[in-house]
Amino acid sequence: MRAEILCVGSELLLGQIIDTNAAHIAQELAKIGVDLHRKQTAGDNLDRITDCIRGALSRAEVLVITGGRVRITDDLSREAIAQALGVSLEYQEELADELQAFFAKRGYEMRETFLRQAYLPAGTSAIENTCGTAPGVFYDANGKFIFAVPGVPREMKAMLEKFIVPTLLERTEGERSIIVSRVLRTFGVGESQLADEIEDILTTAQNPTVAPLIFGNTEVHLRLTAKAKSEEETTRLLDEMEDTLRKRVGRHIFGRDEQTLPKVLVEHLTSRGETLAVAESLTGGLLGSSFIDATGCSAVFMGGIIAYSPVIKEDVLGVSPADVEKYSVVSEEVAAQMARGVQQSMNATYGLSTTGEAGPDSATGAPVGTVYIGLAHPNGVEIEKREFHGDRDAIRKRSALAAIDLLRRFVNELGDHDMKAQP
Amino acid sequence: MRAEILCVGSELLLGQIIDTNAAHIAQELAKIGVDLHRKQTAGDNLDRITDCIRGALSRAEVLVITGGRVRITDDLSREAIAQALGVSLEYQEELADELQAFFAKRGYEMRETFLRQAYLPAGTSAIENTCGTAPGVFYDANGKFIFAVPGVPREMKAMLEKFIVPTLLERTEGERSIIVSRVLRTFGVGESQLADEIEDILTTAQNPTVAPLIFGNTEVHLRLTAKAKSEEETTRLLDEMEDTLRKRVGRHIFGRDEQTLPKVLVEHLTSRGETLAVAESLTGGLLGSSFIDATGCSAVFMGGIIAYSPVIKEDVLGVSPADVEKYSVVSEEVAAQMARGVQQSMNATYGLSTTGEAGPDSATGAPVGTVYIGLAHPNGVEIEKREFHGDRDAIRKRSALAAIDLLRRFVNELGDHDMKAQP
Repeated sequence: MRAEILCVGSELLLGQIIDTNAAHIAQELAKIGVDLHRKQTAGDNLDRITDCIRGALSRAEVLVITGGRVRITDDLSREAIAQALGVSLEYQEELADELQAFFAKRGYEMRETFLRQAYLPAGTSAIENTCGTAPGVFYDANGKFIFAVPGVPREMKAMLEKFIVPTLLERTEGERSIIVSRVLRTFGVGESQLADEIEDILTTAQNPTVAPLIFGNTEVHLRLTAKAKSEEETTRLLDEMEDTLRKRVGRHIFGRDEQTLPKVLVEHLTSRGETLAVAESLTGGLLGSSFIDATGCSAVFMGGIIAYSPVIKEDVLGVSPADVEKYSVVSEEVAAQMARGVQQSMNATYGLSTTGEAGPDSATGAPVGTVYIGLAHPNGVEIEKREFHGDRDAIRKRSALAAIDLLRRFVNELGDHDMKAQP
Repeated sequence: MRAEILCVGSELLLGQIIDTNAAHIAQELAKIGVDLHRKQTAGDNLDRITDCIRGALSRAEVLVITGGRVRITDDLSREAIAQALGVSLEYQEELADELQAFFAKRGYEMRETFLRQAYLPAGTSAIENTCGTAPGVFYDANGKFIFAVPGVPREMKAMLEKFIVPTLLERTEGERSIIVSRVLRTFGVGESQLADEIEDILTTAQNPTVAPLIFGNTEVHLRLTAKAKSEEETTRLLDEMEDTLRKRVGRHIFGRDEQTLPKVLVEHLTSRGETLAVAESLTGGLLGSSFIDATGCSAVFMGGIIAYSPVIKEDVLGVSPADVEKYSVVSEEVAAQMARGVQQSMNATYGLSTTGEAGPDSATGAPVGTVYIGLAHPNGVEIEKREFHGDRDAIRKRSALAAIDLLRRFVNELGDHDMKAQP
């Protein structure tokens, strides 16, 4: 079953907002084996939307349309569907009653113009909107499906989950094969180096396919995509390939799918019953805030000191003013004292610090991109010097992640030692 | 001149990565008066890409294609252009020499397969790639333009700026009208309330048009879009409309275009010669890190304490354990003591604090979404209680912005007082 997506909205077309709806729809369709062949984006222009609909129906069996409401009451997608199918818009008594009931229940004033929502293209039916007022439109005839849903992500997602996916599942039963992807996340290795190390796999692997992708300017992901008749089969194919890849480049891989570096570290520390505090200079709160979405973080993450100004490093973290003078704030010595300072003042197992020059001009004398990461642990302090490229934002994000990765590798090695020490 | 964009790549189509290239291209084309009519996205499938190209050429005069490289050496877009135009790929001696020179200069090994990049569809020419190896493709015949550029944003942007825009500018001279947008940013008001207050303008304004848009789940933007023959004229139209809107809903507007709340606050504080420190509980570093990209922030932002754990609130910020016990950590009293504590320990003009319950379950006993924001200023402490909706992430982001907005409004009013006090 071939599918196409049509996104309607001048803000989308003109790039004033970035479309995330289509990505979500594409992923959900892939999961049920409906192949997406093309995506179109049109502005708020009735004739062009109509033309896109006609084109899609000539090529595909399934068309999902998102967006199209230009005022609270006017829906261009609905009009364009009618035009493309060559039918008129018809007043739906039942739909009007539902709308009135919806408004009455919430105590809203029911304006006359809202009743325009009760018109649907002849031969179509409404898709219930469980999160808002504007219903979707469903067409099912001549071997073609059209689903038109609102552009509001929450409303679109609810209709996709509750109506579109079940409807298509029912119709494709028996004939479908499903596509499932898995992501292996790496940090600290470039895309080309990683690609070189597994060039043979990237070139020859067919099912799953393997593709390297740069993610958020900080990580490189390996995306494995498997196609099979059942989820058991895709899982088996993905497991095998993951195994092969881990044997070759496992040292770069820190997690899978939604496992971010902070989440992986919080898991490690939780299982060890250890705690963490951070002292941040150039990252200014970025490092600390990266932990707060990790499950269980409140048992692990004590807090931190944002020592953006040098005087705070000295007064609050106890960094030696003489050392700041002698070595500058971007130095091994200051990173070490910051890490030690926060570890002690917050009474944490580990203190993690960042100090560096984010640019664009060097305010510290250090070359732009030079970053020292400090890790105070129960038996001493480790320092890592890094040279990052990119703009301020990239340098800061990479610094925060590099700090997390330093501690992740440190506790990983401890884990290995522990295991080796066992009989 | 009508334009279309074609984005090529299965990762894009399947939503594994979100397309930001098309938005950038659309904005740059709008600035030179080239109207974008449609955007298509196709996967890595030669025949479908070809079909998209044929369709676009039948409707528009300008087609910009991004992406299409599936290996370092193979470019589907190039093959599809040849197929759509019904021509073959031809070896370009000159291009091959340039590629070899490029690799020699960087000391890279020149693999045989890299020379595939030296093949172009007959009748097209190369667009120089100043940031990478793969050249773009330029077609100019029969009143149609095709520009094919890499999917790598940096390479695409360079070609757009250095080749596509100048080429189109030259061809559209005299006939063009330009489109310029301006965004007025509001905080603390819902989209529907804002829309109600200016419903007449939203409905009737033609040039500029005015549209409300929810931004990042935290702000509502008013986007003004003007079309005219010259930039002077669009500026005049935008200024007039901004003036009208500010008279009506100016109290909600904090900035324009790229002016974020942190940037606006840092500007205010810089001009007053005042400083700021933060004490963060539920925001965990988010508030502090929001300042670090604001120009001049190092003179204003001293730093902060991330007091994620209650013990840190007491030990480092000096919050009274008895008050934590009596009122709970999510309380007016704790917010006040946190703000005062960090203001004093960092010797700043203002101390700004957040404490609240981000959910998903209440760990503090307070209802999810309840947040107290503390502002310690030279003459006392202000507290604002807020009830936010949404998930953890939304509650945290809104809390950080609400804290910044509280201080922004506070210094704004001081400014008014100062002015009123003058003779």
